[in-house]
Amino acid sequence: MDEVRIIEIKESVFADNNREADRVRQELKKDKTFLMNLMSSPGSGKTTTLVQTINRLKDELRIGVMEADIDSDVDARTIAQTGVKSIQLHTGGMCHLDAGMTEQGLKELDTADVDLAILENVGNLVCPAEFDTGAVKNVMILSVPEGHDKPLKYPLIFTVCDALIINKTDVLPYFDFDMDKVYEYAHMRNPKLEIFPISAKTGEGIDAWCDWLKKQVSEWIG
Amino acid sequence: MDEVRIIEIKESVFADNNREADRVRQELKKDKTFLMNLMSSPGSGKTTTLVQTINRLKDELRIGVMEADIDSDVDARTIAQTGVKSIQLHTGGMCHLDAGMTEQGLKELDTADVDLAILENVGNLVCPAEFDTGAVKNVMILSVPEGHDKPLKYPLIFTVCDALIINKTDVLPYFDFDMDKVYEYAHMRNPKLEIFPISAKTGEGIDAWCDWLKKQVSEWIG
Repeated sequence: MDEVRIIEIKESVFADNNREADRVRQELKKDKTFLMNLMSSPGSGKTTTLVQTINRLKDELRIGVMEADIDSDVDARTIAQTGVKSIQLHTGGMCHLDAGMTEQGLKELDTADVDLAILENVGNLVCPAEFDTGAVKNVMILSVPEGHDKPLKYPLIFTVCDALIINKTDVLPYFDFDMDKVYEYAHMRNPKLEIFPISAKTGEGIDAWCDWLKKQVSEWIG
Repeated sequence: MDEVRIIEIKESVFADNNREADRVRQELKKDKTFLMNLMSSPGSGKTTTLVQTINRLKDELRIGVMEADIDSDVDARTIAQTGVKSIQLHTGGMCHLDAGMTEQGLKELDTADVDLAILENVGNLVCPAEFDTGAVKNVMILSVPEGHDKPLKYPLIFTVCDALIINKTDVLPYFDFDMDKVYEYAHMRNPKLEIFPISAKTGEGIDAWCDWLKKQVSEWIG
């Protein structure tokens, strides 16, 4: 297994997170780096989805990944195996990342030679949604076993995201998951939400998702 | 569908949550009411597990359920169909419940005629673990699709819980979930953790779980 660098990030000192997030985005624009903030519940398949995404895009884009976790470095080690730059951020118990914390990660990642930077946020549908990290686009994963009612219960995260990946479609036959309902509920929260059903395990749907992401990156970095 | 009462709970005014939690427990002891705090990720099957549990125990114990959610009342309505007392707590965006917030719910539930009160906490593996709610026992659910590595990534919740329910064993054949590993990792965090593999869908394992819970309740209420 590759060795990964673990960064202990500190609580932010910035009172105005939104202003700080805008500043982070301006820096990213200057550096020609696109930052995607990826959020989901624990165990919805963020890391597996990233591995698939990286393998499709790494020949076209220079990718760097920040894996945020309260503890452990298992995800960063998995990502490192794809050959892209990968660091582990430890949040010291914090349930989310804000712009200041994200910026500490971006500095350690060194975005000068990165086109697509990805922040895998802490697995949590509540707190991460409340903090602008400075990302250009917010993306969330909902996995089939979690159920189609989640937009009813965790409204904010569906509102702040630009794209929703519905993962684990390979197990649809074993769960009472209503795909039409999840589209309806998610669009009720956010009519502009782009939705991509995928199976990170089998690769189904990954192409459409990657095409969307590639388009967002090229629109940003020009 | 039954109508359910929705309570908008307010942020706590207590500076010392641990002291407040001890006070809540003393009141519960006096009232001969056992409070179980149930925590998990979104979509791990808290409500379905509760329905199974209630149906096994409602003839022997007087049960009352508080469903905490940021929004919606779908869970409280599902629970109300079992015939037990059920109220919905809205947390106003808060990602967890502390002792003061739980106490507001207990008052609305009215525990005078309740042997077993259940708090279904907000779906989140991070923040709820940090706050003692005043519960006599903490229980968490991890579902098979979430993966066996969760005790490595979310250490605190495994440390503060008395019992771990591993739900959705009916889909074990479709996931790379290592049952031996989850026992090993969970006991690494907390050697005294009681573990109950169940399928809330098929009813498998529910008896052993309910026997444990019944024993805890009778030890508390005497």
